Amino acid sequence: MIYLDNSAATRLDERVHEAMVPYFFEKYAVATSEFGYSLGIVARETLDEARNDLAAIIKGNDEEIIFTSGDTEACNMALKGVAYSQMKKGKHIIVSKIEDFPVLNTAKAMERDGFKVTYLPVNGEGLVDPEELRKAITKETTLVSIQHSNQEIGTMQDIASLGRVCREAGVLFHTDATHTFGRFGFDMGQLPVDLMTMSSHTIHGPKGDGALYKRKDVPLQKWMDGGYQEFNLRAGLENIPGIVGFVKAAKLMNEEENSMVRSMRDRLMDELLKEIPDTMLNGHRQKRTPQNANITFHQVEGESMTLHLDMKGIEVSTGSACFSRSLEASHVIMGIGGNHERAHGSIRFTFGRYNSMDEIPEVVSSMKEIVARLREISPLKR
Amino acid sequence: MIYLDNSAATRLDERVHEAMVPYFFEKYAVATSEFGYSLGIVARETLDEARNDLAAIIKGNDEEIIFTSGDTEACNMALKGVAYSQMKKGKHIIVSKIEDFPVLNTAKAMERDGFKVTYLPVNGEGLVDPEELRKAITKETTLVSIQHSNQEIGTMQDIASLGRVCREAGVLFHTDATHTFGRFGFDMGQLPVDLMTMSSHTIHGPKGDGALYKRKDVPLQKWMDGGYQEFNLRAGLENIPGIVGFVKAAKLMNEEENSMVRSMRDRLMDELLKEIPDTMLNGHRQKRTPQNANITFHQVEGESMTLHLDMKGIEVSTGSACFSRSLEASHVIMGIGGNHERAHGSIRFTFGRYNSMDEIPEVVSSMKEIVARLREISPLKR
Repeated sequence: MIYLDNSAATRLDERVHEAMVPYFFEKYAVATSEFGYSLGIVARETLDEARNDLAAIIKGNDEEIIFTSGDTEACNMALKGVAYSQMKKGKHIIVSKIEDFPVLNTAKAMERDGFKVTYLPVNGEGLVDPEELRKAITKETTLVSIQHSNQEIGTMQDIASLGRVCREAGVLFHTDATHTFGRFGFDMGQLPVDLMTMSSHTIHGPKGDGALYKRKDVPLQKWMDGGYQEFNLRAGLENIPGIVGFVKAAKLMNEEENSMVRSMRDRLMDELLKEIPDTMLNGHRQKRTPQNANITFHQVEGESMTLHLDMKGIEVSTGSACFSRSLEASHVIMGIGGNHERAHGSIRFTFGRYNSMDEIPEVVSSMKEIVARLREISPLKR
Repeated sequence: MIYLDNSAATRLDERVHEAMVPYFFEKYAVATSEFGYSLGIVARETLDEARNDLAAIIKGNDEEIIFTSGDTEACNMALKGVAYSQMKKGKHIIVSKIEDFPVLNTAKAMERDGFKVTYLPVNGEGLVDPEELRKAITKETTLVSIQHSNQEIGTMQDIASLGRVCREAGVLFHTDATHTFGRFGFDMGQLPVDLMTMSSHTIHGPKGDGALYKRKDVPLQKWMDGGYQEFNLRAGLENIPGIVGFVKAAKLMNEEENSMVRSMRDRLMDELLKEIPDTMLNGHRQKRTPQNANITFHQVEGESMTLHLDMKGIEVSTGSACFSRSLEASHVIMGIGGNHERAHGSIRFTFGRYNSMDEIPEVVSSMKEIVARLREISPLKR
């Protein structure tokens, strides 16, 4: 079996699991600072250390890390938490048109709550123009949320430039870094980013874990009510095994692996584009996350391709169906100027730690054969 | 070491871990209904099966189970989700005075948002009077939330009677069953309860997991925005290993174990009350969860007791400090008519699967010794 589907990096690393196991069993306690309660203090110290380690990875401070149940929760916290705490200033936020659902649908929900939302367009490669962002900011704007990289086409935004525009305008800036955290170095001391969403399941860490980076002094309304955990910003018993696993996964990410992933991806991408006619790359050729390739095979349906690949033991995803489970066309492909045919003819290949270069020739030859066969019977045949 | 602290039941069961492991590794995929994506379909079927199993345990229906990141999130969803979707009817909700923080502090947060909240008093044993509930309901009331059992003193409410009062008045009823789920049988087909919070970490399941039971047709505003998971009520990638572990833990709970836990608890409770003078039980003697004993040792500070017990290898919790990490007196002990001295002199003993009857004599003799010694030097000595 060859796994290049959107779950490729959600397989847990054995070393992550090993790091978690002690916290399932011997060191299972709830974190506490209660006097004399040794196991609770071990839990508290473990939590502090994990927070410290994660902060160090992105060159932030401990008190800027809020552990969450994942990237969806972190995005909800960032958008609603900032915007609702800033309503006296205004009720306008800005997001890009091609955000993933945690940001896009949170923005839509906020519209129903009386917020005004600007959905910034992107160019044909998926990039937001910082000048367009500058023009979109009004006196009422309190928050801009633009993803670091795209979930489908892999395009990476220039968040330093976008953040500078926000800073000059006195507007807070959040970026959803779900697909770049662990893939690139972050220096929160330098980067003009006020809030950043990080995810665990995209880097071979446990599911159900993530974090929001929130720069000190950024106002945030409490997200979940209850206990006083996470600097009184996110209630709920801390999931210590999950947090330990998430941070271990983050520590295991490294440039060598990312280069390897990039090489495999480049080879697959280049060979498919070269050897199969009537194909096109979606997203920017250079400014993209190393793990992602997204290619349109014209005149073919993505769902038919995934089905045929599956019969050959190769798992991939269409660009469109990750969360929606519908046949609606991908808002990302449409956002970069594609039509329905292009959206439905796109395949997303995602690479992870467990792929190898040896797999590429088989994927290329299978794709050649499948695309040729499907084109023969395609009603879209030119 | 003897563990009777509030983490006693948060230690993962080995069998739960075994059930989770395949979903960390071979079957790690994201649930999907995408065509041809076999691993994603395995994940989808696993999720459906877990939902089905959990529904069967409480005699509910599959579509009435919403998996969450824990009890805190389930309580937030229930209170805010119902109340915000019913604002046209009114902005009044009712909770008990002794709710745990996920309900109590959510209600307080809603007050700041313009909701009127009635905090129902309880009697000396912690029970809400259904007649008082009836009187508190107004035309503006949309939701009543009263816990099934108390987090500190273990008292169990008569949720059938309370639920009937709500039903007669046409008001929705939520109960936080965090400390009773797995300890008692639930028949949601019979019980007049519209929403119920369940937790995983209280039954030797993984942390970071829980569920909200929501009766069909109960209106609920979407909690977290993003993807369309959990019947489009709770966005976020499903944590399949966690859900599998939670449901496995729920299946492992059984009456035999609960009886054993009750016997150990009864023995400890009876011997401490008999052998140590100037003590009192907090909560109802019979109407209480099997795993909980809460005793006040007059003239002694709870924190000193926990410290001395810890030095003897016995872990317990004070009644007051679970979530608050403050020296504020327990709102529960105050709610049942206690004063600060009683609140600070209370110890909560929590039993779990890994305790044994052999531990009781040691705990009793240690407590006798410690309480006697502390009383000698107590400024509160009578």
